[in-house]
This record gives sequence, C-alpha cells and structure tokens, in this order.
Amino acid sequence: MTLISNDPADFADEALAGFCDVHAPLVRQVDGGAVRRSAPAQPKVAVLLGGGSGHYPAFAGLIGAGFADGAVVGNIFTSPSAQQAVAVARATHSGAGVVFAYGNYAGDVMNFGVATERLRGEGIETENVIVSDDIASAPVGERERRRGIAGDFTVFKILGAAAEEGADLPEVVRLGRKANDFTRTLGTAFAGCTFPGADHSLFSLPEGMMGLGLGIHGEPGLEDLPLPRGEELGRTLVERVLEERPDGAGDRVAVILNGLGSTKAEELFVLWRTIGPLLRDKGLELVAPEVGELVTSLDMAGVSLTLMWLDDELERLWLAPAETPAFRRGRIDAQRLIPSATELIPVRAPAPSAIPPGSEASRNYARSCLEALAAAQHTLHRLEPTLASLDSIAGDGDHGRGMVRGVDAAVTAAREAADAGAGAGSVLTAGGDAWADKAGGTSGVLWGAGLRAWGQRLGDEESPDDGAVAAGVASFADRISALGGAQPGDKTLVDALVPFVAELTAGVDRGVPLPQAWETAAAAAEAAASATAELRPLKGRARPLAEKSLGTPDPGAISLAAVFSAMGPAFAPAGSVTR
Amino acid sequence: MTLISNDPADFADEALAGFCDVHAPLVRQVDGGAVRRSAPAQPKVAVLLGGGSGHYPAFAGLIGAGFADGAVVGNIFTSPSAQQAVAVARATHSGAGVVFAYGNYAGDVMNFGVATERLRGEGIETENVIVSDDIASAPVGERERRRGIAGDFTVFKILGAAAEEGADLPEVVRLGRKANDFTRTLGTAFAGCTFPGADHSLFSLPEGMMGLGLGIHGEPGLEDLPLPRGEELGRTLVERVLEERPDGAGDRVAVILNGLGSTKAEELFVLWRTIGPLLRDKGLELVAPEVGELVTSLDMAGVSLTLMWLDDELERLWLAPAETPAFRRGRIDAQRLIPSATELIPVRAPAPSAIPPGSEASRNYARSCLEALAAAQHTLHRLEPTLASLDSIAGDGDHGRGMVRGVDAAVTAAREAADAGAGAGSVLTAGGDAWADKAGGTSGVLWGAGLRAWGQRLGDEESPDDGAVAAGVASFADRISALGGAQPGDKTLVDALVPFVAELTAGVDRGVPLPQAWETAAAAAEAAASATAELRPLKGRARPLAEKSLGTPDPGAISLAAVFSAMGPAFAPAGSVTR
Repeated sequence: MTLISNDPADFADEALAGFCDVHAPLVRQVDGGAVRRSAPAQPKVAVLLGGGSGHYPAFAGLIGAGFADGAVVGNIFTSPSAQQAVAVARATHSGAGVVFAYGNYAGDVMNFGVATERLRGEGIETENVIVSDDIASAPVGERERRRGIAGDFTVFKILGAAAEEGADLPEVVRLGRKANDFTRTLGTAFAGCTFPGADHSLFSLPEGMMGLGLGIHGEPGLEDLPLPRGEELGRTLVERVLEERPDGAGDRVAVILNGLGSTKAEELFVLWRTIGPLLRDKGLELVAPEVGELVTSLDMAGVSLTLMWLDDELERLWLAPAETPAFRRGRIDAQRLIPSATELIPVRAPAPSAIPPGSEASRNYARSCLEALAAAQHTLHRLEPTLASLDSIAGDGDHGRGMVRGVDAAVTAAREAADAGAGAGSVLTAGGDAWADKAGGTSGVLWGAGLRAWGQRLGDEESPDDGAVAAGVASFADRISALGGAQPGDKTLVDALVPFVAELTAGVDRGVPLPQAWETAAAAAEAAASATAELRPLKGRARPLAEKSLGTPDPGAISLAAVFSAMGPAFAPAGSVTR
Repeated sequence: MTLISNDPADFADEALAGFCDVHAPLVRQVDGGAVRRSAPAQPKVAVLLGGGSGHYPAFAGLIGAGFADGAVVGNIFTSPSAQQAVAVARATHSGAGVVFAYGNYAGDVMNFGVATERLRGEGIETENVIVSDDIASAPVGERERRRGIAGDFTVFKILGAAAEEGADLPEVVRLGRKANDFTRTLGTAFAGCTFPGADHSLFSLPEGMMGLGLGIHGEPGLEDLPLPRGEELGRTLVERVLEERPDGAGDRVAVILNGLGSTKAEELFVLWRTIGPLLRDKGLELVAPEVGELVTSLDMAGVSLTLMWLDDELERLWLAPAETPAFRRGRIDAQRLIPSATELIPVRAPAPSAIPPGSEASRNYARSCLEALAAAQHTLHRLEPTLASLDSIAGDGDHGRGMVRGVDAAVTAAREAADAGAGAGSVLTAGGDAWADKAGGTSGVLWGAGLRAWGQRLGDEESPDDGAVAAGVASFADRISALGGAQPGDKTLVDALVPFVAELTAGVDRGVPLPQAWETAAAAAEAAASATAELRPLKGRARPLAEKSLGTPDPGAISLAAVFSAMGPAFAPAGSVTR
C-alpha cells in the first residue's frame, strides 16, 4: 500500500519537491522535472531521462555527474508532457545537443517525439534512445515492440558515461542504442502495487502465484506460475534471459538484480546466492553487478534480472564513475561536483511566441471554437466520475482526471489567445498545446496534438465552410491516428473517432446540412464507443484486468464521443445553413 | 510479505552469503558475520556493529572505510551469539582494541557482554556502545531502558569516522556515547512484517491505524492513532522529537527520515516536504540529511525520524567520508580501498583451548552430565512444536528451534570433551559454550552461560555430593539471573528456575534424598511454568500480542521446567542415596 500522501493528485509533484529539497547539493527542480545543480565545465550532450513517477530511483534519482543531466517527471505511471520535456531540455542544453532516453511506452514515445520536433524547430539537435529490454513483452523477432523495464538503468548509465566523456550526439546515441541491443531483462511480480489514495491495488495475482514477465505497470506477462523456492526462481530467470543472448555477445556481462518495491534487500541477496554462481557457472564474468532497487513500481512485490553483454567500450562506460542521489560509482572529479554561482545553468525561458493577429472573420469563428471547448469542459467535468470508474477497470483510473486537467488548461489558454486577438486557428492551437502540457500521458498528447493540427488546418484568416469544418476534424483525426498508431478495433478513442469523421465527411459531401451531419456523426461515434465494450484491448494491463475489461467500453472512446457530441451546437449550430 | 526464500531457517545465512558475494570488492564473510575486504594501513580501533538480521542495510551494509570494520550477524530479529562476536572481533582486531556497537536489546546486551569478557580475557581491549535513541520506549528519565532504532545509524557513523581518524579506544567510545546522548528517534508503523516462510505477519495493526512509537521488532509503542495525512504525520514526528531536545544542544542537526521496509522512497520524499521545511522553521540547520532505508524491519510499513544534535566534533565526524555497500559519502583515500594480498587481515583462529584432563571420579560424573544433556535433547526435540506454537503468540516463534539448535550443539561438544578425557566441569562448560554459540539470541546466551557457570562450580576433580549438585544448579540459576536481569513475575524462564532451585536446595538441606528432592523441585518448576499463563510480559511485543499472551504460558519457563524434569534420572538417579 502507498500510505503516505496529502492530496493524492499532488503525490508526484510533492515527491519531486521533497526529493529536490533533500538532494539540493546535487539537483534542483525546474519546470517539468529536475536537473543537475552544477553545469558542465564545457558543452556536453544533455542526457535526459524520462517517464512517469513511481519508479524511483528511476528517473530523477539518477541525475548527476556521469549519469543524467536531467529528468522529465510525469505523474504516477503517466508520461510527462511534451511541454515538460521541452522545458527540461531548454534548462540543460549546453550547446552539444540533447538525447531523450526512456522506456518504450506509447505515451512516452509520443510526448518525447513531439518535444523532439519542437526542439529541432528551435535549432536544438535532439535525438531519442528508446529502451526495449523486456523479453516478456514481445517475441525476439519484434524487439521494437518490447517495453523498457530495468534495462533502462544499464542503457541510461552508458548514455550518461558517454556524454560525460565528451562524446558527440551521434556517438552518444550510437552507444546508447548499442547498450539497448545488448540488454535483456525478465521480471516477475508476486503482488500488485497501490496508487496513493487508492484502497485497492492496481492489479492482483492469485495468492501464492507469480506473474512471470508482468510489466512494471502491471502489463500482461508470459504466464502465471506458482511462486517457487528462491533457487528455482533464480534458475528460471537465468535460463530465460540467457536464451536471449544477443548475436555477437561476449562473456562479460553487467548484471542487475532489481527489486520492484516491496521485495526487500535481504530477499534479493538470498536470490543472488543462486543467480551469481549460476551465471558464473555458465562461463560469464560478472562486471560490477548491482543488487537493489533501481527501477521500481511503487510498492509492487517482485524482481527482475537484467544482463547487458559488454564489449570493451560498453564495459568502460559501465564502470565509469557516477555520482547521483541514488547511485554512486568510483570517484568523479571533485570540480564537477562543486556548484558555483557562475556555473549554475541559467534557465532559458523560451521567448513567448507572438500570437499573430487573426482576420475579423477568423476572430469571429474563434468564438465558436471557444464555445466548443467550453462545452467540452462542461461535459468532461460531468463525466469525470464515470470515466474514472471505467478506467479503473482496464487502466489506472486516471482518464477522467487527465481529461479534466487537459480541457481546463485548454479553455484558459484558448480564451487568453482569443482575448489577445488571435484567429480561430491560433486559438485551437493554443488550447491544444495547453491541453498536452497540463494533462500529460497518452490522452493528453493525443488531444493536444489533434487540436493543434485542427488549428493549423483552420488558419487565422478564413471562416470555414462546411467542407473546411469537416476537413478540420479530419486533420484532428489524422494526427491522432498517426501519432498513436492505433487501429479501429484496438479499443481506443480511435474506435469512436473514425466513424465520426467518416459520417461527417460523407454527410457534408452529400450536401447534408452541417448540424444534421454532425448529429449523425455524433450518434455514430457514441454507438461505436459503446460497442468497444465487446473488444479486448490490444495492450491491456495485467491479464486478469484485460479480461475484466471485456464488457466495459473504452473510456477514451466514451470521452471522445461525448466531447464531439457536446461540441455540435458550437461548430454546427442548429440555425446554420450549408455554406 | 517476505516471499523469496529457500529453507526459511537458512534465510539469514543465505542473505549474508549473497550480500558478501555481490559486494565482494568491499566485504568478505567470516565466521560470525562479515568484515572489510581491506585491512587498515595501521592499527585502528575495530568498530563492530551487531544485531539480528532483517534490518538491512543495518548492519552488514555499513561495513567499509569510514564506517564499520565488521558486523556480527544474528538470525532474523535475534541477537548473534557471544561466540560469533568473539570470532568477528578476532578477525578485525588490529591491535588498537574493539568496540561493539548495538541497539539496547536484552539478547544483544548479554551476548556482546559475554563476548567482551572473553576478549578481555584474551588480552583484547573491548568496549561497548549501546544505542538507546527510541523516545517511545521509556520515559526521558530512564534513557538507559530505551531501545535502539534508526539512531543506530548516526551513532555508528560517528564511531566509524572517529576510528578512521585514528582516535584511540577511549576516545572512540566517548564520541560514540556522546552521539547517543544527542540522538533522538520516533518511529511509527502502519503495518507489520512477515518472517520468511511465515503465512501471517508478526503483528498487525487495525486497518487505517498507525502504531506511534512501535518498535522495529513490533515492540509496544505509545498509542495507536488513525493514519493521518502526510503533513500531519510530519508535524507529529517533528514536534515529538523536538520536545526531547537534549540539554546543551545547538542549532545544527543531522537528520534521518528512515523507511522501515515497505514505505517507498517517493512516500518518504512527500513526507520530507513537510519535515525539512518545518525543522528549518524551528531555526535548525540541517546538515547532510538522509532520506531512505537505513534501519529496516523486513517488510514493515512505517517511518522514523531521527535527529542528532551536532557540535563541531560530531558535525565533522557526521560529514566525514565513508564508502560502504549501502552508504557513501565524500571521497575516501583511494589507497584505503584497494585490497592487496599483504593487506588482507589474517583470520586469527584462536588456539584450541586445551581440555584439562579430569580425575577419574569427575570423568565418571561426566557421564551423568552427558546423559542429562541427552535427556534434555530428547525432550526439547519432542517439545519443539509446542514451544514454537507458544512462542508464536507472544514472541517470534523461534524459541523451539533455538532450544533445539542449542542443545544439539551442546550434546555434540560435551561428548567430544568427554571422549577427550575431560572431567564433568569441562564437559558442561564445553556444552554451554556450544549452546550459546549455535543458538544465539536470548535463550542461547542464558543457557550457555548458565551451563558454563554450573561446570565451573563442578570442576574437574570431585564427584559432587548432593549439596554440591544443588550448588551447581544454583550457580546455573545465579548466572542466568545476573545476566538476564529478569525477576520472578516477569514471565520468563526465571519464573520456573527460581522455585526449582529453592525446592531442591531446601530439600537437600533438610536431608531429603536427592531423587525425591529433584522430583519435588521439578514438579514445582512445572507448576510455576504453567502459572506464567496468568502473567503479562514485562517487555512484550506490540500491545495486541502482549495482551494475547495472557492465558498462554511462557515458552522459556515451559522448556526450562521440562529440561530439568528430564535431567532428573541422570543427575539424581532413582537408586542413588544421599551422600
């Protein structure tokens, strides 16, 4: 159980603030996360780790000399927003480029991807190294689909050491990807974890069973097995990981035996007594093995075994010194650790982007956009408990809160833009950016990017005719499909979005008046959203919950259908005629 | 739950072996515990930490330069034996003396006390620093009765740094005791911990409640309170600890916010967000605060707050560098950390103590002693499940196993001594030493020391008459009473021992034949042991269990009465006549 909290919604923020307070000699808090206290003596590649909270010491605990330059810190088990990633990158960029490193999860991939585009647009060289070490999450032939778990640590360590040595961005990225190619992890969970304020765990396992390969957010694993004795568990982990020995791997390995949260150090040592000798018996030389908590999942009980096969350069980087709040190795040059006033990194606040003035027609249409967002806000507040309840079955229960946070921010930002004289396109764009920033996670980045695409399609000059309205919605949908990669039938918001766009476009094409076409489209979306109850999620949570979600509609589809339905009177007012 | 184990009885040994394997660059395993890999460059005071297992990183995780020279490692929540302490001291003594440092628990005080006597007998200067920081365990006026909890860490750190600086034994002890005088801790538990292999927790708290002041082995606390919000919890801990500000304390403090096992780093950071600023608001300067797991209790959920008020010398030592498996600070001279063949501490195995040959009369009586021990062994094996069951109510369920381990070792050692021609006194002494060594804990040290006293009284020359038999038993009892300090009525083995000795002595004094006097005494002991069911233990486990033990006799008293009853035919054979 996670038992210490104030307002559970503030848990991740408060934990970050407390962490930065006690570790003030090494780190400081910035917008979006935390960064090193000391600036590098000369420009270096900024290695920025990221992901949701709840995995300490990943990710902020690994900020420091020889390791990360900063961490982008999302809510619990929720990707940080692209805006957060951009802010942390700006605070740490010293002229040699930025690499974002994170586990392979949809929300992280999308948010860091969007941030990468924006930073490149600002002239900051930015690359991504995505960790995919979890052998249980996809077959060996589909490594790009695998999730990132405790192998985050080995890959991040290589990146941090390479950047500290002064390698340039392409070289740092090459080494990080090589580390990922040579890293394999298998995890197993004995019991679920509990969100702050929750009175039941996110998932559960039958008493006396373990979920082999279960993910760090409770994603489905390989199989449920009776919890074995320590020696048998050690053998299973070693054998399964060694089966995945990469091509070209040598005999030296970095090893991590990682505790997931409630599995204690002494249990890990008992297990290591089997694992260490067994690996040596297989002819492997163990290089600076680590036994402890490195990538956790709140209070989940369980362990994971990670091997990174080493060649000379990976071994040198694995053994390189590091000094972070949660991990120290060797001795860092003392001068790197002493902050001075002149060395502090100035936080380069971005120049506020000037809002281009809109035409009068577009400013008028912006009022409809505002009205539509306000209607969405009203609906989402009303629906929040329903969405939370739906999401608690197949997800982590935060969909309602995330949507509310996003739409609240969007309405505020859109209104400010409109008050400043922006046209309709800039109003939607401002709303979308704010939505993505404040909501974070998968739904946040999708809604934000969708609204931005819609706004860019609208522009700040024209007042759209019916065809242009439909084209705006289609831009919204295209961007979401491209970014999220979900197909109809995957039990996501796309299941409601695709029929909405299809009906609206077909109706407008046939000359049906916009209000009627919108109404028909909204009805189709709502029907499709309800029908997602019949679907099994493609990438659900742990198996029992994935099964349990059968019979429950997808909260993302439900919220999308409700929002488009609510937007109808604004975008397609009853009295309007086909233009 | 503690879920990873093989044979639960081997858990502590296996954890130690795994720990020493993975941390082989810094530590190595020796008889009785673990020591530094590298020897000191010149003689220094050996700082030896100790106590039961289950508290990692206390105690073995703190071995290393600037901290401990070794750790004496007992079974889970059980004091190590005096023999273990002696062995670790011999492995680390470099000529400047030894200081044992441990929390104030009866078993530790006794075992380290016995070890101290033995080491002094071997010419090794030995001192003890006993930590008593737990403000919940006794009133401020009775600090010597207080238990040691997370303040172990601050006191040990001062000792380790002082010894590393080259302070001599009296100075190291002075600084350690000063650190203890200026250290205060208050803990609180939210949920109990589970022994390896156990299917229920050692104690439990009502749902939604916390035990303020509850001890790290589940000892009774101050009061049970509804689990508050993080901010209120932080305020409570700060206010109660500050109420105990020591006389002469300044404004600078070392601070530890310690997690007990299942309370995660992120929860501790949330709590620190209240505690850190609150302490600063009180005008305190926080010097290198630590937030994390430093003294744990298996998987117990809970936290403790420790303050050590600093003056200049304590601050210097608190900030001094250290490099251990679980704790690093600053930079230790590299040369201290590089082991070389010549620097390795030779393990000085004690010269095997020559067994003095016994007289023929005493060698004959030694056969009776062996027979008595064999009878005790038979009885304790038979009783083991009963004792385990009784002890699971008021204790941790290991009394039966501890007695069996002890008596098995005693019989083996006594038989070897008898085979080597020892007299009765040496046979009982050898048996007692082996009992204390293998059993550890409180019952082990008491039975071992008692048998040793009995053997010394007997000597290796005479065959005892009835008065001398009674006097031998009285020596056994006197030693146990002196060492343990328990009074009749405290619900311990003393409740059965005192009436046994009284009846036996009175009977022999009155000229009652020994077999009859023994039988009467054994009956009195058994009645008294049963009557302990009516008693409330003086220092029980958590309150609910202490109450629950009402109605259950004390397992130590039951086993003592059974053993003395079983020994009757050997020490007082039916056909014998008064001599």
